[in-house]
Amino acid sequence: MIISKKIAVKTRGNDDTLDITSGVERALAEANLASGIVTLFVVGSTAALTTIEYEDGAVHDLGRAIERLAPRGMDYEHHLRWGDGNGHSHVRAALVGPSLSVPFVGGRLTLGTWQQIILIDFDTRPRQREVVAQIIGE
Amino acid sequence: MIISKKIAVKTRGNDDTLDITSGVERALAEANLASGIVTLFVVGSTAALTTIEYEDGAVHDLGRAIERLAPRGMDYEHHLRWGDGNGHSHVRAALVGPSLSVPFVGGRLTLGTWQQIILIDFDTRPRQREVVAQIIGE
Amino acid sequence: MIISKKIAVKTRGNDDTLDITSGVERALAEANLASGIVTLFVVGSTAALTTIEYEDGAVHDLGRAIERLAPRGMDYEHHLRWGDGNGHSHVRAALVGPSLSVPFVGGRLTLGTWQQIILIDFDTRPRQREVVAQIIGE
Repeated sequence: MIISKKIAVKTRGNDDTLDITSGVERALAEANLASGIVTLFVVGSTAALTTIEYEDGAVHDLGRAIERLAPRGMDYEHHLRWGDGNGHSHVRAALVGPSLSVPFVGGRLTLGTWQQIILIDFDTRPRQREVVAQIIGE
Repeated sequence: MIISKKIAVKTRGNDDTLDITSGVERALAEANLASGIVTLFVVGSTAALTTIEYEDGAVHDLGRAIERLAPRGMDYEHHLRWGDGNGHSHVRAALVGPSLSVPFVGGRLTLGTWQQIILIDFDTRPRQREVVAQIIGE
Repeated sequence: MIISKKIAVKTRGNDDTLDITSGVERALAEANLASGIVTLFVVGSTAALTTIEYEDGAVHDLGRAIERLAPRGMDYEHHLRWGDGNGHSHVRAALVGPSLSVPFVGGRLTLGTWQQIILIDFDTRPRQREVVAQIIGE
């Protein structure tokens, strides 16, 4: 069976990092399936999904590493051509990636105890984001 | 239902970045399914898949960030042992990753308006690449 | 059909990089399915999955790139708050990512000849790791 859900989140942009685990768990509970995978995909090219221990320290550390990877203050061709000032957002989102697949067994996500699913919004302004949760299971 | 497709692409190597969205859309149209996921996987250890706004500026910016991550001119053990000069290609491909899963709903990929699926060929020579598209849906 | 398997591995921590391809192939052989995807997910927030040509040189080169990305000796907020000394482990795992989906066709993984599935344990001590392999196919 395939069940489609959408998880809507409001972000502040600028690397705002949100724990969306409870939204995914809610979608899974509504689907009422025992075993399968949830494939998550964030719509748009300036946000990304991954997992982390969601506490302020680790989230801050991840942000700093991403800042070293694609610093905000550099010249970006995307910026020069389109003037929207978010060249770094596009690079960061492409490197972290828009999709994540998490198995579930016995109706529960197989996350570790201190492992949460996060959405990072790399855009330079607040955004309304949509995460598609495609639940495949039985 | 599971439908297997292959998308063949010719690359120039050296970070050549190709928009494969239309190939994925064609495979999906042929599968004639309403809802599910397309799991894409690039065969080989020197290419990778992700999404980006496919315009020259952002593609160039991504290439520069990847160059900082695993610079071409460094010493690589892989190179020293095997003499094939593509140590950086292996590192880059492992970091960006070979697989991507994109949901579809109502027969359409849930990509954003300015979000395309790209293959980056990090190898140092032109290659014929194969992307497996495994379509799971109903 | 959905078949759940678990792959247990012992690591030495500190970027220990293990080839888990044969474990995935064994799980797939037991599932006895022809075509589908294997979704792999490493439980916990200090390990990650990707593919590489599994030979000492390329594995060493990948480790060095990851060290540049999130150096061991830096100050990490996670470390300062929790004192467990593995801030870099969390950042590295979040960037490489915990999940990987690999198609199979004709009962075989669609990996390249020199492409193996690896688990990297970024934690600072030996760990017993669990990889969930969710096999969806027919």
